[in-house]
Amino acid sequence: MQFHMNGFRPGDPTVAEASDDHVGSDTSSMPEEADVLIVGCGPAGLTLASQLAAFPKIKTLIVDQKPGPLQLGQADGIACRTMEMFEAFGFAERVLKEAYWVNETAFWKPDERMRENIDRQGRIQDVEEGLSEMPHVILNQARIHDFYLDIMRRSPTRLEPFYQRRLVDLTIEPAASSTHPVIARFDRVEADDDHKIETVRARYAVGCDGARSTVRRSLGLELKGDSANQAWGVMDVLAVTDFPDIRLKCVIQSAGEGSIVLIPREGGYLVRIYVELDKLAEQERVASRNITVDHLIAAAQRVLRPYTFEVKEVAWWSVYEIGQRLCDKFDDVPDGEMATLLPRVFIAGDACHTHSPKAGQGMNVSMQDAFNLGWKLAAVLEGRSSPDLLHTYSAERQAIARELIEFDRGWARMLSAPLKSATNPNGIEPREVQEYFIRSGRYTAGTATLYGPSVLTGNASCQNLAPGFPIGMRFHSAPVIRLADAKPMQLGHVARADGRWRFYVFAGVGDNGQPGHPIAELCEFLVGSATSPLEVYTPSGEDVDSVIDLRVTFQQPHRELKVEKMPTLLVPAKGRLDLRDYEKIFCADLSVGKDIFELRSVSREMGCMIVVRPDQYVSQIFKLDAYEELIAFFMSVFLP
Amino acid sequence: MQFHMNGFRPGDPTVAEASDDHVGSDTSSMPEEADVLIVGCGPAGLTLASQLAAFPKIKTLIVDQKPGPLQLGQADGIACRTMEMFEAFGFAERVLKEAYWVNETAFWKPDERMRENIDRQGRIQDVEEGLSEMPHVILNQARIHDFYLDIMRRSPTRLEPFYQRRLVDLTIEPAASSTHPVIARFDRVEADDDHKIETVRARYAVGCDGARSTVRRSLGLELKGDSANQAWGVMDVLAVTDFPDIRLKCVIQSAGEGSIVLIPREGGYLVRIYVELDKLAEQERVASRNITVDHLIAAAQRVLRPYTFEVKEVAWWSVYEIGQRLCDKFDDVPDGEMATLLPRVFIAGDACHTHSPKAGQGMNVSMQDAFNLGWKLAAVLEGRSSPDLLHTYSAERQAIARELIEFDRGWARMLSAPLKSATNPNGIEPREVQEYFIRSGRYTAGTATLYGPSVLTGNASCQNLAPGFPIGMRFHSAPVIRLADAKPMQLGHVARADGRWRFYVFAGVGDNGQPGHPIAELCEFLVGSATSPLEVYTPSGEDVDSVIDLRVTFQQPHRELKVEKMPTLLVPAKGRLDLRDYEKIFCADLSVGKDIFELRSVSREMGCMIVVRPDQYVSQIFKLDAYEELIAFFMSVFLP
Ligand SMILES: Cc1cc2nc3c(=O)[nH]c(=O)nc-3n(C[C@H](O)[C@H](O)[C@H](O)COP(=O)(O)OP(=O)(O)OC[C@H]3O[C@@H](n4cnc5c(N)ncnc54)[C@H](O)[C@@H]3O)c2cc1C
Ligand SMILES: Cc1cc2nc3c(=O)[nH]c(=O)nc-3n(C[C@H](O)[C@H](O)[C@H](O)COP(=O)(O)OP(=O)(O)OC[C@H]3O[C@@H](n4cnc5c(N)ncnc54)[C@H](O)[C@@H]3O)c2cc1C
Repeated sequence: MQFHMNGFRPGDPTVAEASDDHVGSDTSSMPEEADVLIVGCGPAGLTLASQLAAFPKIKTLIVDQKPGPLQLGQADGIACRTMEMFEAFGFAERVLKEAYWVNETAFWKPDERMRENIDRQGRIQDVEEGLSEMPHVILNQARIHDFYLDIMRRSPTRLEPFYQRRLVDLTIEPAASSTHPVIARFDRVEADDDHKIETVRARYAVGCDGARSTVRRSLGLELKGDSANQAWGVMDVLAVTDFPDIRLKCVIQSAGEGSIVLIPREGGYLVRIYVELDKLAEQERVASRNITVDHLIAAAQRVLRPYTFEVKEVAWWSVYEIGQRLCDKFDDVPDGEMATLLPRVFIAGDACHTHSPKAGQGMNVSMQDAFNLGWKLAAVLEGRSSPDLLHTYSAERQAIARELIEFDRGWARMLSAPLKSATNPNGIEPREVQEYFIRSGRYTAGTATLYGPSVLTGNASCQNLAPGFPIGMRFHSAPVIRLADAKPMQLGHVARADGRWRFYVFAGVGDNGQPGHPIAELCEFLVGSATSPLEVYTPSGEDVDSVIDLRVTFQQPHRELKVEKMPTLLVPAKGRLDLRDYEKIFCADLSVGKDIFELRSVSREMGCMIVVRPDQYVSQIFKLDAYEELIAFFMSVFLP
Repeated sequence: MQFHMNGFRPGDPTVAEASDDHVGSDTSSMPEEADVLIVGCGPAGLTLASQLAAFPKIKTLIVDQKPGPLQLGQADGIACRTMEMFEAFGFAERVLKEAYWVNETAFWKPDERMRENIDRQGRIQDVEEGLSEMPHVILNQARIHDFYLDIMRRSPTRLEPFYQRRLVDLTIEPAASSTHPVIARFDRVEADDDHKIETVRARYAVGCDGARSTVRRSLGLELKGDSANQAWGVMDVLAVTDFPDIRLKCVIQSAGEGSIVLIPREGGYLVRIYVELDKLAEQERVASRNITVDHLIAAAQRVLRPYTFEVKEVAWWSVYEIGQRLCDKFDDVPDGEMATLLPRVFIAGDACHTHSPKAGQGMNVSMQDAFNLGWKLAAVLEGRSSPDLLHTYSAERQAIARELIEFDRGWARMLSAPLKSATNPNGIEPREVQEYFIRSGRYTAGTATLYGPSVLTGNASCQNLAPGFPIGMRFHSAPVIRLADAKPMQLGHVARADGRWRFYVFAGVGDNGQPGHPIAELCEFLVGSATSPLEVYTPSGEDVDSVIDLRVTFQQPHRELKVEKMPTLLVPAKGRLDLRDYEKIFCADLSVGKDIFELRSVSREMGCMIVVRPDQYVSQIFKLDAYEELIAFFMSVFLP
């Protein structure tokens, strides 16, 4: 955490200095104009708002029809990859402290000797060793919302949502005719007739308005897929049981009573249980079945036999109906017109893809959608990148959602399939469920996301310099030592959710940063050449790392390197006072067994340069002297 | 973190439910009566208030003459032991995130070839490996105050200080005549004449009012020691320098310009420098010397030669005058009258001991004073322990303060002594300074504190069962796995600052908790016997762990143990809903090299029971079947 750069400020350093023209917390009436209008305060909307709130020049407006923040229920699973993102937003430690940690998962199946009872099939480590520096955790979705709202409140724009506004419709004027072509009309829920309708004009709008998205409907887009919804019962309860694995995540399959997924929750006592209900007919709503929580409790009790399960309090319950559906496009530009039209309206999260809660992906993928989109909108609105960049949002995230739905189908099929038994010899083996779960671990952890080649994602020509940092996948953090203060830390945690590109450079063997070695030469190019991306894209008057943040990691033990002999660029003067930033240089951490070069298979011989997007995905890997390629890469993402 | 035990509550679980009769935040006029009156909102007062705020039945009042919370300056070093305490209070992770971490310390001395310049003598790891699970960190004292104020605000009593009240005097009526024998008179700073004096009556009062303590004066106690004060210059600055170790803690001794201590600060840019000034004559105040910050800057520049040091902004500076002084007694009972009188008024922190800032102990020791006293006051006020217990505060902490002052004298002498040189062949070797620092590392980390035998601290008869948990020293945490959810964690972190005793039991080899083994037998005694401390001292209607919190650690890998076969006492029913608490059973963590049995030399053969005080100090170690000794121990600390 860096602060006091522009002079000492007392108080909480996570509260940014307010920008002069922040919209503020006067929520009595909405501004008439915004740069970005976000509809919906779910995980997608709040991630996007938290990202954009960091940019004082961007006027962001976020709106929800609800009377206030969520208090209870909905999703709760937080994948490792999401935790990595929370770290960049600055609240991972709060989640780590409060959440339940999913360390192991247990599988239960019918008891061979007495098939009406269940019996433990096996128990596995939930997340494979080394997959992420972050654990898989479980926490009430409402608390995640709280943390985001807190980030927004502490941001320079002091962003607060406008509640009790329901989007009625949204139209887009032809772009040429207006700087703010998106027109959104809101119904002020609970206002009197005179003030019922408010109109907002925006440069861009993002529909984060959930599965029944009005934005989607206004764009004429459609969720396609299953015609019928799957109904789920879900309840968060305080219960007393003699089921031994009540504090482990469990997938429990009974012989004749269906299956449940049991998820221990934060605080040590609460537990969530998912009960699979019937498939609904087309257009049928689960409400029509009059399912009560007693129905869900009874179902859980039947599956858990021979164990008792006495519910003492129901904190929240719901019947949740959802199909596996997907939009073809996540923005307003039809497939055939991408060469001529620029996107103005986007949809994210449940608005463009829905799936079962079983794989725990709804909230995670929604937030990753928004994280993908946020920095792109900021880059375009701040004039750093061309609006063409915005095409990559739908291209990248639609492909990911499609994969997710495939995966979810497989998982749902597996959990609903009848188990193998004497009468059903072709049924599925309980062992297969466990194996499928292990195989799909990277997927559910969110670390399998791979973006295909594009303007943002390079080809694999230099992948061999660092096979452990796959191009198109998230930059996988590893331990290092910070040179100037010998602090052991995670290299990936230097990345903040601030819209900046990271430029991780790994020194070759023997390079100590001193003149004559490749690192010093690279720095000379970066500060000395008129074509250097730092020279070309850093706005004048701004810090040298304000657009591209360079971090160098050396192979030597940290006491062997001399900070005073490093190129000036690696101890740059910053801010109003020209203070030196000592947090750019790292060394391998040799105390932890394998160091970062070994863990990520970075070529010790050659070193390499790795360009990482603001949302932490690896864009490209270059040789240490590939200046021309580096120039070319940034030329394709930045405006001159 | 455990919550939702008495039913689900939405929102932030670190905000406790408000008790019905909390004093509240109406700070317009003070209540006339309190159980505990705390004078002073420094580190000592706030630690004590945070501790007492957790007890809804205790009416605590905390008062300061200042207009509001501290914003800047004063102490900044936070020892490992203090971090362990912060973990118990629940804000260690906030400090870890915001603070500078002291990983290594560098020593600088005159350059042999050119003695007017300085040269690096050496560099050492700041805290010895394995000394604590917590690092040594540096953070603005004001932020520590903020965190405590936050804890108080979130407590059931919603405790807020009363500011702008200056204690004028304090008197004690003979105890027999009143339940609230302490009478304190406050001057309302800045109030008009009519409302100037407020009087508060209290059962107990604690003077946390700093080096010029009015409470101390009212008790007729005296700080004894040096007649003259040492003057120190201290400044927190934003500076640009080519001194290479600017982000490392440094002890820098020049040949002819004195010495400085340099301490990097939180946020990456700020740095603190201590400059030793002259010894003052008796009664002389440093203010009379008209020292300015330019004087301090110039002194630092002279010491740092040949390096440049350009100060861009001074965040805070002070000349700080202090002698090494100590009170004989930290309460109002004279030495000879301890058998007949009970203490009513205490002093803590700088009010009873003062020392140089060089060893960074002032704030740390002050907080540990208060942590020692807080639970004792709570135990007496809640009727669990006899008021005799309160004698142990002065006995324990005065001895620690005396040691501290000895240590501080040695350290100060060493840093002020002329260095060895051609003209001063008997001077001190720079190497000796570094060695002294290493030797005293446990001391400065706060982990060397050892309380002598008393009603609270047993003899060493069973120390051999766990030599790594020395009786009288703080319980040294180590990694374990929680059985029910397989979570890797620190055993010591189950201890919260809640006034409860911890009872850590370590199972012998082969004991799996099942009947016939010592753990099951112990549990049977604890729940079944009329003389069991749990039976005798747990108030009826309260949870079984409300006074003594039992935690058992087994030797087996966690997957080999069965939670369903454990004694009921280890999965106790708690709270309004009789929910089961699954966080009492732990296993050795075999993935980390040495497990807790090996790290702390706990007898694998025999196991043992360890009784730990609410402030985390080991009281006594017993054999697993030493029920009678256990009964006797608790009989001496609790009222029947
Ligand atoms: C009742 C319910 C229960 C769920 N239970 C689970 C579960 O048990 N497990 C699980 O994994 N997932 C569950 N989910 C799904 C999970 O919460 C979503 O996947 C996740 O919240 C998606 O985030 P999102 O931001 O895309 O949309 P949402 O979280 O749905 O947020 C959309 C927001 O937009 C607002 N909005 C909608 N239309 C308008 C409009 N016209 N004008 C203004 N505002 C509007 C809504 O009020 C809402 O706040 C549940 C969802 C719901 C609604
Ligand atoms: C100006 C200053 C600079 C310091 N600089 C350093 C440093 O650089 N390094 C270092 O290690 N330590 C420093 N210290 C010492 C360090 O801050 C103390 O060791 C530590 O704060 C002790 O905590 P305490 O709670 O015992 O007392 P204090 O922090 O001194 O708190 C005492 C409180 O009592 C209040 N008070 C006093 N008298 C009355 C009264 N009659 N009525 C009501 N309220 C009263 C005061 O306003 C104050 O808030 C400094 C202290 C001061 C005052």
